[in-house]
Amino acid sequence: MGAVAPLAKLMEQFERLPGIGQKSAQRLAFYILNLSDEEATRFAETILTAHKSVCRCALCCDLTDSELCRVCGSPSRDGRTICVVEDSRDVMAIERTQEYGGVYHVLHGAISPINGVGPEDLTVKELLRRLADDSIEEIIMATNPTVEGEATAMYLSRLIKPMGLKVTRLAYGIPVGASLEYADEVTLLRAMEGRKEL
Amino acid sequence: MGAVAPLAKLMEQFERLPGIGQKSAQRLAFYILNLSDEEATRFAETILTAHKSVCRCALCCDLTDSELCRVCGSPSRDGRTICVVEDSRDVMAIERTQEYGGVYHVLHGAISPINGVGPEDLTVKELLRRLADDSIEEIIMATNPTVEGEATAMYLSRLIKPMGLKVTRLAYGIPVGASLEYADEVTLLRAMEGRKEL
Repeated sequence: MGAVAPLAKLMEQFERLPGIGQKSAQRLAFYILNLSDEEATRFAETILTAHKSVCRCALCCDLTDSELCRVCGSPSRDGRTICVVEDSRDVMAIERTQEYGGVYHVLHGAISPINGVGPEDLTVKELLRRLADDSIEEIIMATNPTVEGEATAMYLSRLIKPMGLKVTRLAYGIPVGASLEYADEVTLLRAMEGRKEL
Repeated sequence: MGAVAPLAKLMEQFERLPGIGQKSAQRLAFYILNLSDEEATRFAETILTAHKSVCRCALCCDLTDSELCRVCGSPSRDGRTICVVEDSRDVMAIERTQEYGGVYHVLHGAISPINGVGPEDLTVKELLRRLADDSIEEIIMATNPTVEGEATAMYLSRLIKPMGLKVTRLAYGIPVGASLEYADEVTLLRAMEGRKEL
């Protein structure tokens, strides 16, 4: 005899979430039951509102709740540089550095033949359409340093370079604050190759 | 510049959940956005339904969606033995053993002066009311083997024993399948004290 039906169903829903196992799902479900009526309603409504109102920016495909995202809609951003990332979370990560002044393009994934993800599943068409604009000068490939991210960067670079645009890739190297002894060989090799004069 | 407002609010909601940090909350929020309309609606509705329909069993205070929980409502359970637990999750754990045939009483917590939880915050009154029934023979204290659980078991046992009822406590010892070398001293001591002839 397990939990009563509505509770069991709630646990099931939580268990489907990424990174949530059976024990965590149980803990989360009990947490929901202990919320006040108002809090539980707000929780459910937040899910529905977010799901309904968040869409893709007409320009860069990042997530937004209006026509253009806040970066594309800002007059202070430099539209000549486009930073291509896999995911909206990557935009947030780069924005946290508070140094990048250009705009983004969110691919919503990376090319991965093994998972059946091809260029047509990403926002490649939308990116190419943007590149028709003569003012664009540089495309920064900021896809992840994984097999899929690399493949995507290579693929796009081969498409874009012939258009006469500057295509760059984020630097590889040792992460700041990390210890050399824990760096893997490939990272160390890339860090050596990319060394700079002091 | 962080996430758009509805997404940021959703992340905030997830971050309040126990054991969910900022990164997990972000991952969960993105998962919700990627659900189909139908799935997102079902998720929100499951929360509301569970929160609305789950209440306490009129007898044992376990969670249920009807007047009596499934254990109390079952004619095949032996009402002479009451197993007192802190939480509904403990009922589920004991039910999984498929060996216990008695009924339960869920305290919904344990006495903890440091957290301001006294007997009046638990379902102690409801338990004492049940004990007025002459048919009851044994009360098994199955509160957690923690300071709070022990204090609660001691407190209840002092209340109940004078009523002429048998009060027992779960056995302490080494967990089955565990390695002796990892057992703490107190557990080992209790296991020695409770040793049985083979």
